[in-house]
Amino acid sequence: MFKNKKKQAILKLDKALKEDKVDYEVIQLINIINKLNNYYTTSSCAGRFLLISKDDVRDKYNTDFIYKTHDPDLIYQAKEYLNNFKGHLWLLLEAPNFHVGCIDLNSAIQLHKLSLKAGFGYSKIQSLEPSIVVEILGTSRISSPLGHKNKLLVNDNYIDYICTICNKLLKEEQMKLKVWEKLLSETFLTDKKI
Amino acid sequence: MFKNKKKQAILKLDKALKEDKVDYEVIQLINIINKLNNYYTTSSCAGRFLLISKDDVRDKYNTDFIYKTHDPDLIYQAKEYLNNFKGHLWLLLEAPNFHVGCIDLNSAIQLHKLSLKAGFGYSKIQSLEPSIVVEILGTSRISSPLGHKNKLLVNDNYIDYICTICNKLLKEEQMKLKVWEKLLSETFLTDKKI
Repeated sequence: MFKNKKKQAILKLDKALKEDKVDYEVIQLINIINKLNNYYTTSSCAGRFLLISKDDVRDKYNTDFIYKTHDPDLIYQAKEYLNNFKGHLWLLLEAPNFHVGCIDLNSAIQLHKLSLKAGFGYSKIQSLEPSIVVEILGTSRISSPLGHKNKLLVNDNYIDYICTICNKLLKEEQMKLKVWEKLLSETFLTDKKI
Repeated sequence: MFKNKKKQAILKLDKALKEDKVDYEVIQLINIINKLNNYYTTSSCAGRFLLISKDDVRDKYNTDFIYKTHDPDLIYQAKEYLNNFKGHLWLLLEAPNFHVGCIDLNSAIQLHKLSLKAGFGYSKIQSLEPSIVVEILGTSRISSPLGHKNKLLVNDNYIDYICTICNKLLKEEQMKLKVWEKLLSETFLTDKKI
């Protein structure tokens, strides 16, 4: 069961890699996890900044991605994309986010603890059935509506302010990826003979 | 172990009730859960709108609560509290949020599924050790910085806009509490003899 699911996940990942759909910032991390016998990744995001528009505030399905970056220093370029949207325009900052399938409960508990230790404080057990999946998630989050029906309701000063905050938060969250990688390597890849 | 923890949680709850520190909107729900043999609540929130100020963007400890309400229709009163803050002013909308201790994994899985069914889509397993705890959490969330060092960076139109969105989202999230209560009652309190 676990082996089959891992095999499927790896095939899906290979396809995504070929199509350039995987955040390059986390490929090394994904590889570390997938090399471990007890785990596999099902999704991964290095953290991102988004501008989206959607017809209704709660609309899940009619969402246009206007601008997206995983690079904190490219957040400021959002300014160039604020003048052409339908519906509601939202600015989102999302922390790094991984989903990892686990072979058993003990493996899930161990990964969960280690993820919290790395600073990913919103990490939880996503599901126990039909698969055991741990969600790794950082605590930074901004979700701010900016305007409606092509009318921006905030000015340049505000955009500079919120972009500066997003830049700072995303940098800090991405530092945690390094901590997590170090903890994963130390915990699972150490040569036990030494 | 479970029985002791439940006993402690109920004592803590009784103290909070006496001190008027429990959201009245969810007292009935708390009572339903605590009457069940397999569950107890450790925290509960009906969903809320907040204005907070904090010295640093990531400051966890120096946070001032400027305005707080669980009532969607009182959100608009936030306007009266925007002129006196230190540090960064943040507007937050938080969905209903419960933590429920469970006697075993099956109870956790059952509660988790039922919470997702009620529309609380960010519900997860908070921990497996030392206690099995399910977090019930809705999907609506706004987290928006509004200004810095007593200088508000948004205007009245924007405040009206974001308050209208928050009002709508909080109303919708609180409707899910009714759905959840109904599901809990139907699933766990039904007279099985019928």
